[in-house]
Amino acid sequence: MAGMTTATAPTQSQQPQSHPLVDRHAGVLQEATAALAGRSYFSRYPESPSPRVYGAGAAEQGQAAYEALLDKAFGALGEVATDGGWVGEEVSPYGPALGVTYPHLEVDRAIEVAQAALPRWRDAGARTRAAVCVEIIDAINTRSFEIGHSVMHTTGQPFVMAFQAAGPHAQDRALEAVAAGLAEQERIPASVVWEKPGRDKQGNPAPIRLQKDYRVVPRGVALVIGCNTFPTWNGYPGLFASLVTGNPVIVKPHPRAILPLAISVAVGREVLAGAGFSPDLLQLAPEAEGEGLAKVLAQRDEVRIIDYTGGPGFGTWLEQTAAGAGKQVYTEKAGVNTVVVDSTDNLRGVLGNLAFSLALYSGQMCTTPQNIYVPREGIRTDEGMLSFQEFGAKLAAAVGKLTGDDARAVELLGATVNDGVRANAEGLAALAREAGGEVVLDSRAVVHPTFPEAVVRAPGLVSLDVSREDVYTQECFGPVSFLIGTAGTEQSLAQFRDTVREHGAMTAAVYSTDEQVLDDAREAAADAGVALSENLTGAVFVNQTAAFSDLHGTGANPAANAAYVDTAFVANRFRVVTSRRHV
Amino acid sequence: MAGMTTATAPTQSQQPQSHPLVDRHAGVLQEATAALAGRSYFSRYPESPSPRVYGAGAAEQGQAAYEALLDKAFGALGEVATDGGWVGEEVSPYGPALGVTYPHLEVDRAIEVAQAALPRWRDAGARTRAAVCVEIIDAINTRSFEIGHSVMHTTGQPFVMAFQAAGPHAQDRALEAVAAGLAEQERIPASVVWEKPGRDKQGNPAPIRLQKDYRVVPRGVALVIGCNTFPTWNGYPGLFASLVTGNPVIVKPHPRAILPLAISVAVGREVLAGAGFSPDLLQLAPEAEGEGLAKVLAQRDEVRIIDYTGGPGFGTWLEQTAAGAGKQVYTEKAGVNTVVVDSTDNLRGVLGNLAFSLALYSGQMCTTPQNIYVPREGIRTDEGMLSFQEFGAKLAAAVGKLTGDDARAVELLGATVNDGVRANAEGLAALAREAGGEVVLDSRAVVHPTFPEAVVRAPGLVSLDVSREDVYTQECFGPVSFLIGTAGTEQSLAQFRDTVREHGAMTAAVYSTDEQVLDDAREAAADAGVALSENLTGAVFVNQTAAFSDLHGTGANPAANAAYVDTAFVANRFRVVTSRRHV
Repeated sequence: MAGMTTATAPTQSQQPQSHPLVDRHAGVLQEATAALAGRSYFSRYPESPSPRVYGAGAAEQGQAAYEALLDKAFGALGEVATDGGWVGEEVSPYGPALGVTYPHLEVDRAIEVAQAALPRWRDAGARTRAAVCVEIIDAINTRSFEIGHSVMHTTGQPFVMAFQAAGPHAQDRALEAVAAGLAEQERIPASVVWEKPGRDKQGNPAPIRLQKDYRVVPRGVALVIGCNTFPTWNGYPGLFASLVTGNPVIVKPHPRAILPLAISVAVGREVLAGAGFSPDLLQLAPEAEGEGLAKVLAQRDEVRIIDYTGGPGFGTWLEQTAAGAGKQVYTEKAGVNTVVVDSTDNLRGVLGNLAFSLALYSGQMCTTPQNIYVPREGIRTDEGMLSFQEFGAKLAAAVGKLTGDDARAVELLGATVNDGVRANAEGLAALAREAGGEVVLDSRAVVHPTFPEAVVRAPGLVSLDVSREDVYTQECFGPVSFLIGTAGTEQSLAQFRDTVREHGAMTAAVYSTDEQVLDDAREAAADAGVALSENLTGAVFVNQTAAFSDLHGTGANPAANAAYVDTAFVANRFRVVTSRRHV
Repeated sequence: MAGMTTATAPTQSQQPQSHPLVDRHAGVLQEATAALAGRSYFSRYPESPSPRVYGAGAAEQGQAAYEALLDKAFGALGEVATDGGWVGEEVSPYGPALGVTYPHLEVDRAIEVAQAALPRWRDAGARTRAAVCVEIIDAINTRSFEIGHSVMHTTGQPFVMAFQAAGPHAQDRALEAVAAGLAEQERIPASVVWEKPGRDKQGNPAPIRLQKDYRVVPRGVALVIGCNTFPTWNGYPGLFASLVTGNPVIVKPHPRAILPLAISVAVGREVLAGAGFSPDLLQLAPEAEGEGLAKVLAQRDEVRIIDYTGGPGFGTWLEQTAAGAGKQVYTEKAGVNTVVVDSTDNLRGVLGNLAFSLALYSGQMCTTPQNIYVPREGIRTDEGMLSFQEFGAKLAAAVGKLTGDDARAVELLGATVNDGVRANAEGLAALAREAGGEVVLDSRAVVHPTFPEAVVRAPGLVSLDVSREDVYTQECFGPVSFLIGTAGTEQSLAQFRDTVREHGAMTAAVYSTDEQVLDDAREAAADAGVALSENLTGAVFVNQTAAFSDLHGTGANPAANAAYVDTAFVANRFRVVTSRRHV
């Protein structure tokens, strides 16, 4: 009996008239959905900025497009629900002010137009929405150089990283969210005939037959609150997860990283309008520094979904207040990313890999390792036994070698994004003194050959004792990591487990040649609820995750309450309303 | 490239050694999963209490088993984390005190033993957990008569309804939760080899290969807070959803409906122990009336998931406080279930169906219609135009006919569960006066032929004007419904939409012969976020939903923040922790 009526049941996506984009993007949606189900390698958007991939002149045109935006009012959003004000005070971490201003929204009207745009988008069906989303992401991809420059000059990322992380990698994460949202909506059939066997009073078969129609309805207005360091990479998943499930989205960028999301929203509005939908399904809500617009929007009853990346203060307030008010809240905050070093048969690989992880974007990634546990008695390596001090010295040397040449270093380090990071970078000696530890490597000030105003800092290392939890269980954002001396790997793993459970982490890594230690590390990671990278010594780094395969975050520790992208990230952004009748 | 490695990827359920129950229940899990995916008819547990189905003597043995439990300490839970106290003051709505006492838990120890039981259950894998859950539900099914009597004498349900709703129907909902939880966990492969194409410096293919293991980890201790009227039907979905996803469960029954859950938990503990797991994966936390144990448990940090059915006061507190503290909270509270009457070509069918829906269990279902909107100018029927008053009189007559004979009526009405319901049933005249309306049908006091102490009340009807929102937008639990006179169906639908959006509803129904009205009703239902039954005139009732096909609740209006059983009900009860390494 089971499944009897399902073979011919229409899916959520079978609409009377198919949208022209549905056919165009059927292939990629099928590939993306399969990749996500299998967690296998998949990428739609090439990460190489090479002219062989993106076309001759693409780089130059993108840079020119970026430069053409500077010192102007940003007009590409079209007609928006503005209150007539213009805001925008972005200053590049590399020095120059961007001079771009954006139309400030009138909140009441913005919510009104979002709600007005909802019914048509809802009724278009899941597959049309997914196809329109792919069209938006494809269009965003063609702007990757422009977005790369805008990210470089709002976040301080070095250009190639900005291009990759804020361009194709973010676009792949966006597509992942679309695929996950589509798959989830299509798991509910649009209509079934339900037949319950039964008999009439004469004993003849008299089944009860009901037609049941299942309708996907969105939650309401969705809010995306962007962060300073990864405006698109951390912004797109929530944006596209909400949009594909039928919710109009208001994007509130960080006041110092508006432009990358402004370009993205402008592209999205244009595609939406071109596809026959209201551009107000996607709105940009820029704010002046200190305006507190995120809180205003988050408190609106009409806002039913909130995606947030940023500091733990506001994130915790959102989790408590907005989640407590019945809104769906997805947060990524902060944590203490951890590395446990036990032993290795490839010391050079360990040092190179770790040094790169620490140096990339001056440690300003939510995934950069902070706490590196090393036994005080030292570790076994292919170059012999290394004491705690020797390991620290070798890691310091590896970082020094990687970042020793200013011109090459800045292409890896980028620029520091704000004064907090700069203060952390400058405070190593004081920190070490306070912690009863030592500065193993000071954070070197690097002079940027092109942007002399940029404050560029190479990673620094402070060694301290495992007893100083008061120091190392706080996030020290930027180019500062701790070498923590433990009584042995058993204690390292115990501290890893306990500190991550309590304070959160986005990433963890272990280095060991001992299968038992690796097993114990997996247990500790499962208990702590954090993903584990084991013995990375090559071109994969603990701070990087791949869309469609790696979950970013787990939602199982305090650093983030959600993961990119699992079912839980999309399944509650819509609801299903049934209507049933006899047939 | 996509999906390349997935064909041979092991699933979450492939364990080194398969549990013997896995094979035994593979068939039913496959059927249940297929039915749930297709939302087609499926039932594992026969709803007929006939001896031809459950065996000769089963009814008598079940009743004897129930009676053997009375006036005793409940010993079937085995060794539990008790503080030595015994609680239990259940009194049957039919009169007699049950006289059963239950071991009171010591909260600290209960949480401790739950946590101690977790790792082995987590590591058993999804399919083993699902199979053990099916074994529990199958074992519960063999106790359906005993549970039926225990539900009759704690909730006041008439026996056949108690047998069906608390027995096989609840068991089907339990199995549904197991199937949904299993499917969701198995969507994540246990392990994949991820291969990213690449080239070495010489330009030769040099793919990056990582093995990635995905491990399902539960949230922590789960709490199920039972209600007085449907202890098992509303208790099982959360219980089994949490259990199948790896979480130990503490069941805190309503102090007046402990026994049905005590039997269920005792069965579960026995099956768990027999399957080689700790019985403490399932614990019963009975409390004395007024003890406030639910709040104590809900506030424990170790409790990560809460399922609640009950009044809106505590439900809202849970949503705000526990959800705000990062716990997963699934609630079903209260609402104003609505019927819109526009027209019919089967008046007799409408009246019969509605009368039954109002009478069943004296309207003490969370799904019983309360607000019946009828145009003041009357409705078109196959028996001619009926005025508002005439429709009311005919509905009253239908209820009167259905419940006119005491002996037959009690088999439908059951007994009133508490003084609140009794007060509502007695207060119709005052209510009508206050509302400027009329008592169309008073709630008749019925004398139970077997249980003279039982307070049995037939449905009552009060007519009032649509302007009296102050009266009809509050839940008036029990045998009281409102006939609300409107300016026409357009206003009926508008009120339906607005009142349900604001005050919630578990169910809604419409009667109309006009396709446009039905369409408008579907739109209103989608906006209000409530499931709609259209033109039910036969043996399907608005207050009943079928497991595997109908969602119970939508999570889209204030009556409930979740639905039985969709993906969102299960997907966030576990998390996935990845470990990855080069291969």
